[in-house]
Amino acid sequence: MTSVAVLGASGFTGGELVRLLLGHPDVEVAFVGGERAAGSALREVHPHLGAAAGALVVEPNDAVTAPRRTTDVAMLALPSGASSALAPALLDAGVRVVDLAGDHRLSAEAYPEWYGFVHPEPAWLEKAVYGIPELHGGAIAGADLVANPGCFPTGVVLALVPLIRAGLVDPASAVVDGKTGWSGAGRLATEEASFARAEESLRPYGAPGHRHTPEMELAIERATGDACAVTFVPHLVPATRGVAASCYLSLAGDRVSTGDLTDALARAYAGSPFVRVLADGEPPDTKRTRGSNVVELSAFADPRTGRAVAIAALDNLMKGAAGQAVQNLNLMLGLDETAGLPVAGWYP
Amino acid sequence: MTSVAVLGASGFTGGELVRLLLGHPDVEVAFVGGERAAGSALREVHPHLGAAAGALVVEPNDAVTAPRRTTDVAMLALPSGASSALAPALLDAGVRVVDLAGDHRLSAEAYPEWYGFVHPEPAWLEKAVYGIPELHGGAIAGADLVANPGCFPTGVVLALVPLIRAGLVDPASAVVDGKTGWSGAGRLATEEASFARAEESLRPYGAPGHRHTPEMELAIERATGDACAVTFVPHLVPATRGVAASCYLSLAGDRVSTGDLTDALARAYAGSPFVRVLADGEPPDTKRTRGSNVVELSAFADPRTGRAVAIAALDNLMKGAAGQAVQNLNLMLGLDETAGLPVAGWYP
Amino acid sequence: MTSVAVLGASGFTGGELVRLLLGHPDVEVAFVGGERAAGSALREVHPHLGAAAGALVVEPNDAVTAPRRTTDVAMLALPSGASSALAPALLDAGVRVVDLAGDHRLSAEAYPEWYGFVHPEPAWLEKAVYGIPELHGGAIAGADLVANPGCFPTGVVLALVPLIRAGLVDPASAVVDGKTGWSGAGRLATEEASFARAEESLRPYGAPGHRHTPEMELAIERATGDACAVTFVPHLVPATRGVAASCYLSLAGDRVSTGDLTDALARAYAGSPFVRVLADGEPPDTKRTRGSNVVELSAFADPRTGRAVAIAALDNLMKGAAGQAVQNLNLMLGLDETAGLPVAGWYP
Amino acid sequence: MTSVAVLGASGFTGGELVRLLLGHPDVEVAFVGGERAAGSALREVHPHLGAAAGALVVEPNDAVTAPRRTTDVAMLALPSGASSALAPALLDAGVRVVDLAGDHRLSAEAYPEWYGFVHPEPAWLEKAVYGIPELHGGAIAGADLVANPGCFPTGVVLALVPLIRAGLVDPASAVVDGKTGWSGAGRLATEEASFARAEESLRPYGAPGHRHTPEMELAIERATGDACAVTFVPHLVPATRGVAASCYLSLAGDRVSTGDLTDALARAYAGSPFVRVLADGEPPDTKRTRGSNVVELSAFADPRTGRAVAIAALDNLMKGAAGQAVQNLNLMLGLDETAGLPVAGWYP
Repeated sequence: MTSVAVLGASGFTGGELVRLLLGHPDVEVAFVGGERAAGSALREVHPHLGAAAGALVVEPNDAVTAPRRTTDVAMLALPSGASSALAPALLDAGVRVVDLAGDHRLSAEAYPEWYGFVHPEPAWLEKAVYGIPELHGGAIAGADLVANPGCFPTGVVLALVPLIRAGLVDPASAVVDGKTGWSGAGRLATEEASFARAEESLRPYGAPGHRHTPEMELAIERATGDACAVTFVPHLVPATRGVAASCYLSLAGDRVSTGDLTDALARAYAGSPFVRVLADGEPPDTKRTRGSNVVELSAFADPRTGRAVAIAALDNLMKGAAGQAVQNLNLMLGLDETAGLPVAGWYP
Repeated sequence: MTSVAVLGASGFTGGELVRLLLGHPDVEVAFVGGERAAGSALREVHPHLGAAAGALVVEPNDAVTAPRRTTDVAMLALPSGASSALAPALLDAGVRVVDLAGDHRLSAEAYPEWYGFVHPEPAWLEKAVYGIPELHGGAIAGADLVANPGCFPTGVVLALVPLIRAGLVDPASAVVDGKTGWSGAGRLATEEASFARAEESLRPYGAPGHRHTPEMELAIERATGDACAVTFVPHLVPATRGVAASCYLSLAGDRVSTGDLTDALARAYAGSPFVRVLADGEPPDTKRTRGSNVVELSAFADPRTGRAVAIAALDNLMKGAAGQAVQNLNLMLGLDETAGLPVAGWYP
Repeated sequence: MTSVAVLGASGFTGGELVRLLLGHPDVEVAFVGGERAAGSALREVHPHLGAAAGALVVEPNDAVTAPRRTTDVAMLALPSGASSALAPALLDAGVRVVDLAGDHRLSAEAYPEWYGFVHPEPAWLEKAVYGIPELHGGAIAGADLVANPGCFPTGVVLALVPLIRAGLVDPASAVVDGKTGWSGAGRLATEEASFARAEESLRPYGAPGHRHTPEMELAIERATGDACAVTFVPHLVPATRGVAASCYLSLAGDRVSTGDLTDALARAYAGSPFVRVLADGEPPDTKRTRGSNVVELSAFADPRTGRAVAIAALDNLMKGAAGQAVQNLNLMLGLDETAGLPVAGWYP
Repeated sequence: MTSVAVLGASGFTGGELVRLLLGHPDVEVAFVGGERAAGSALREVHPHLGAAAGALVVEPNDAVTAPRRTTDVAMLALPSGASSALAPALLDAGVRVVDLAGDHRLSAEAYPEWYGFVHPEPAWLEKAVYGIPELHGGAIAGADLVANPGCFPTGVVLALVPLIRAGLVDPASAVVDGKTGWSGAGRLATEEASFARAEESLRPYGAPGHRHTPEMELAIERATGDACAVTFVPHLVPATRGVAASCYLSLAGDRVSTGDLTDALARAYAGSPFVRVLADGEPPDTKRTRGSNVVELSAFADPRTGRAVAIAALDNLMKGAAGQAVQNLNLMLGLDETAGLPVAGWYP
């Protein structure tokens, strides 16, 4: 059994991480960390876990680095800024790290502009592997530090990389329109996030400076070698789970068809247990992915306007966060990619 | 008092039309028509109207053309195909018509491709005035036949025309991503539209052949003189009312700023009681427009990628259908544009 | 025009009050008061009001008592405790008061137990008239101080008083199960009220000590002369507006039928524009009452168990708060009961 | 591996049954039956199952009885009337049956009144064991035919039996107020069930003749020996999963306290992995039970009115249907009660 620590266990993503790991056949949850929740029983912090939470008690996050504690892997579901402050001590002590925050996804020079801080550990940042298993499985297996991607970038990068690699679309032309439920924003105690305010509300947020923008660009560039410029506008809709991203790009030529786009996606993910490529531009649906680690992808050509549309739908807390983190953990440990991860979603 | 007939009164749009007209100071609802609902009391078809429905009884739609019936204006909330079949007899009899269906919005040659039928009355079609009061108020005032716009085109045309007229964006580059609640699809009895299926579901639909696409293109072209090519993908989200459209276009030059875009919108609608232009790219929100005839508009520049984003939010049954139809009626009758129409929305 | 002040204008109820009063033909909104919102334009506090908010600026609540201000009626949508502290100065200055808080609904001795404070002005409390227009219209007309009822009590009292008066049910046997959307709790900034927490959550709250309990009991006792003991458990459901209350009582005899119960309700409210009595136990529905000042009532007998079930559904912010307050205002001013109040609801 | 057939696999409950059984360590899904879905791949009927559905194809329900088919247990998620028509042939052939429909829950004489048909096989009906594992585990283990309870009865029976057995409440005084999301009604294609109709709608349905009424009464009577008369009114609320039932009964004496009620529940379910008894009347919440086989129970006394309130919350498709059916299956097969069943719920 691998000994795993979950930091930031009291949030939505932390809760899903713990739930998945408690049901994982090859893993032992040895430590759950929190900030304000420190000292509370895990089952009080996450009553939905019930008896599955056993006798785990939330400890202060930084207690994970105490001497004589034996942790094989630490999974960090911390706020931005916190994981890059904490990770080096873990890594230096030989603990492998999966960082679910945004602290190891960009290049060092991008942090001041997009995250508002100077990255404290550029050396470790350079060693981080961006953790989309379907694209970087080999590197992830050997990594000490995996940067678990954001929810929108996961869908967008998976949707666009095969199309760009196949030369079917122009990477400089990408417009990405995102829709997300409220769980992506975490456990909020704000009027903005209240039910009475959020129900029946459709609205953009965070544009044009959303942090997922440079993450998408860099990830696509690294995977394809092509520079990419993304206009990204996310929108809040009255749902709890689920993100959908619709990507609009110029077709690389008059002859590119829906079939070409679909084929490129299908070929790229033929052996991937968690990517469901839909036929003929059939619409992806977040509803079918809820609770699973699956992303649905679809693409179609609009020859009338010379544009391609590629759409991704996924559960932001699963394939968009905790699920993908466990998938990365599986690769790091040499386990089957699907260990402890559901393919079937929750419905209805 | 002007004598008004509402056809297709049993649907969602028809219900809102009747509700608004029953509260309108200068109008008498003289006829409510339906198909399957014919013979029922209006208050049974729309129990939420209660005593406001008075003793009105739904009659067969085509009874509106019976001899000796005196109707000044007929408002047609009928399925596509039905209004173009019925309107000529009304128009020939001197009844003015507001058509809320899509039958008088395009040019005749577009109907086979986008609507699947050959338009039966191209002569009347040519006389139809496209009914966005903020852009075509003068022509509407004198029209016998007003084509009431679709919900998405209303928002998109209002958002883009001032930017294109001011030369700030490239009309050939338009990508429009739409989000809509379920009321836009009408009173449905399908599993797809069921609560258990629709809650927590984000998904595209109807692309790339959605009928609002050519309507947007033609309306923009008529208003600006510039050819326009729109890639339009609407999405269903778990809401009842509200449509939001995010429009992405290339900026016309490096120097175009958020301020320039906002100024163009603010100038265009300075005297318009139902257009709320937000400052500095502040996010529009369907929630604030519900129940009112207001559309919220906002725009910002993303100089990093050379793109403009313009966003519209409105209540699809109000400014996107019944409300705008009453606004058009007001212009046709020489009344104040706001007669019988709320500026304040419902909240929360 | 009557000069009206709205205190606590920044909350949900205050917002609805202002919206209704701005559209009221015989009233001028002369003052809007708030606490933290003081100094802000009303249209910023309630953006959904838009231009309807005019140039009104929120002032500190207690500025309403400043000398030389001319207010005919003050409507107090304040937290419990605040209205009883502020009302006396207004009343002593000749300003009539409608109190939407709970400060004038009970007898003085009940306040320590149910509200946790000693009532500061028992003298005024005794003069307060409980404001259910359908039951106490005459007294309301002449009142200086009207205690506007709570949302649940409004529905329960209207449902039960006719049945008790007609001797059809046993008032000592009342069980009331309430369901409410989240707007009843006000503008909250708590995790409990957040969308991600509240969606898909059905749960009781506040029992057995909910403040609406003694209000129901006292109101029924005053209206019928019969002592009444109510077990009341409200539940939160994932909706924004709407409360439904199902009341269970022992039938007074074996022979009491659904028809008897329905007849008693129908007779009691035959002339009431805002009470819709449904036939034959047909189910009330909050959806049909949203945005209107209507309450739907229905009752049926379950002879198998010897019980009666009476159910009320209404919009908690309208008939359950702001709407009924305006109805009370109309009576106080000798206006038509329906002035400024919609009978037709919002749908869908 | 036990060979299990799922009939009625295309519905919501059938889909959950299949999902649970596909992940069950000791079971093989050997047959999936449907009516209209026959001939389709299971993954098309339930796209959320994805690759987990393997190559299973839906066959006609009655093909399960074909010769040479080897089925150990058949689980029937069929409409009422269908399972009692099909079960005898299975049982006579030695196949054990778990019936999720209502066809084996009542006594024969109750079917004409509550279900509208004469029961076709009273002999088998008499042998059926009512399947609440926490109350009837022993009998279930040896049963050939288990009647899997309805969702509301599951919660109500679990909540009330310990209180009645302990003599704390009067079983003749039970009022049960139920709230349910829409999935309980199955895959509906009706306007009533549509999102635009159901959102923001709180309403009772099916009272006073709901079929769960006699089921509760009989189950309580069988478990306690006390006759029980239940007034039961269920309500639809805008949720997909989850039922909550609030039960109101007269306290058996002046001295019965919240502690007594809670203790009785806690003692009764001390060893039950799927029953979570909350302390001190703390409110149960369907949200925490979603996706798990857990029921939350809570009770409190209202000494002021001499009543007890006991509340149950559960996931209607899990502990209220498919989950409990698998729990029953586990008992029938001598497996651990929790095999293949989650204790941790989905959140948020």
